[in-house]
Amino acid sequence: MDQTRQSTPASGSSRRGNPVGRRRWAIADGYIPSWSNGPEPQLASHEAACLLNISDEEANVEITLYFEDREPAGPYRLRVPAGRTRHVRFNELDDPEPIPKDTDYASMIESDVPIVVQHTRLDSRLAENALLSTIAYASDH
Amino acid sequence: MDQTRQSTPASGSSRRGNPVGRRRWAIADGYIPSWSNGPEPQLASHEAACLLNISDEEANVEITLYFEDREPAGPYRLRVPAGRTRHVRFNELDDPEPIPKDTDYASMIESDVPIVVQHTRLDSRLAENALLSTIAYASDH
Amino acid sequence: MDQTRQSTPASGSSRRGNPVGRRRWAIADGYIPSWSNGPEPQLASHEAACLLNISDEEANVEITLYFEDREPAGPYRLRVPAGRTRHVRFNELDDPEPIPKDTDYASMIESDVPIVVQHTRLDSRLAENALLSTIAYASDH
Amino acid sequence: MDQTRQSTPASGSSRRGNPVGRRRWAIADGYIPSWSNGPEPQLASHEAACLLNISDEEANVEITLYFEDREPAGPYRLRVPAGRTRHVRFNELDDPEPIPKDTDYASMIESDVPIVVQHTRLDSRLAENALLSTIAYASDH
Repeated sequence: MDQTRQSTPASGSSRRGNPVGRRRWAIADGYIPSWSNGPEPQLASHEAACLLNISDEEANVEITLYFEDREPAGPYRLRVPAGRTRHVRFNELDDPEPIPKDTDYASMIESDVPIVVQHTRLDSRLAENALLSTIAYASDH
Repeated sequence: MDQTRQSTPASGSSRRGNPVGRRRWAIADGYIPSWSNGPEPQLASHEAACLLNISDEEANVEITLYFEDREPAGPYRLRVPAGRTRHVRFNELDDPEPIPKDTDYASMIESDVPIVVQHTRLDSRLAENALLSTIAYASDH
Repeated sequence: MDQTRQSTPASGSSRRGNPVGRRRWAIADGYIPSWSNGPEPQLASHEAACLLNISDEEANVEITLYFEDREPAGPYRLRVPAGRTRHVRFNELDDPEPIPKDTDYASMIESDVPIVVQHTRLDSRLAENALLSTIAYASDH
Repeated sequence: MDQTRQSTPASGSSRRGNPVGRRRWAIADGYIPSWSNGPEPQLASHEAACLLNISDEEANVEITLYFEDREPAGPYRLRVPAGRTRHVRFNELDDPEPIPKDTDYASMIESDVPIVVQHTRLDSRLAENALLSTIAYASDH
């Protein structure tokens, strides 16, 4: 076996510098149910964007929401420190305005440093919970 | 810290112009259950394609359906206005023909401007609901 | 508005010719539960690969299975006609050998024409069903 | 029909050599529930990364975990033999430290040979289970 392969693959590089991800992300399937059945707060119905910033710079993030029959809302601004993750519950966004329940929407998430975005939803409207998660759509442009 | 990073990352550009997404999308896993248990209409079993058009042009979209043992159906035509999202329930497509229930199918979604497509299904056949969502397959060609 | 946009976006091209997709796909998360609770056959626990071939050539497909502690199994061979989809239940693959239940595995799906592959699982071990679906990993190589 | 298409598409090449995948993967949505309802061990709440290595070299893998309000943890080191899959339950990682429950986190998975990574979670906190799975975010860099 090749001795050079005994070295660790990318040790340390993932933690600082050498960013991973993209600057623009889209989540087309947005929906916040208006009621829950699960114990609060972990099992309340919610929708979240999970952001990961492994770069060594703080990420300034803007979220813009799109609807079917009105103008877009936002931007909602937040920061993800260097080497940190942040799981943003859309339910809790309220500046400049809260997100309407039981309404289809979509979101664009834009950052000034590359990040990774995963979309997750817990739906506890019925007695048992349903769960989804998918990597958001990443754009180069 | 670099002072230029104090500016907002992409403010305004996401809302008009500077489109994100692709023109051709595929959803290989299509299936509409024939019965439901949830309260109508939010928890009726359904399958949807969530379309997001952040460009400044209306998107003309065509959906073509593929089956295991018959010729393709469609195209089903619809529009997504500029700066809007549209969550299309496959159950409700009926021109040129409704989609059969309990039948495996797949779909191609083609647009004249770049859009983002996410696939979602709520299955409420049993007492509790199951939920899935995934970004569709994007093609450059 | 540009008059040329009045033409349909890609009419007809999706059905024959102008293929979409890739030739190699990977599903790393394979698992077939050994028991079910749902009514047969629609709600039996199963795992499937949904294949879409919109090209005008039949696709010859080979599936190879990988395990944690034994040699790979396969290839399992099947065909997807031109302009058709096929939802392959892994439970039903038995040539050259059936897939063990309650065993972690992964799969490579290789085709001689570009196809799209989506991975889905229905888990009905408990009283209610759980459902997942995700686009498989597409490779150029 | 082209006679050359009668040959099998990629026979054998998937099993040894001709690797598929990437060296860096991100899972932004990490969360291990602190309690379960399902029968042990199959239906205990868990979160897993499913790794597939179809190359002919053993993969040396490092997992680094990111949190919201503390320094990253890891690296957690493991190997995936050539031509094998490995489904890693995050619950079981304990060197250099166990992963806290009920805590949002994210993970980077880095390998010295190309692999494919899929993220899955079984949540059995309530009487019935919820299941998710998605391909992780793949990076070239």
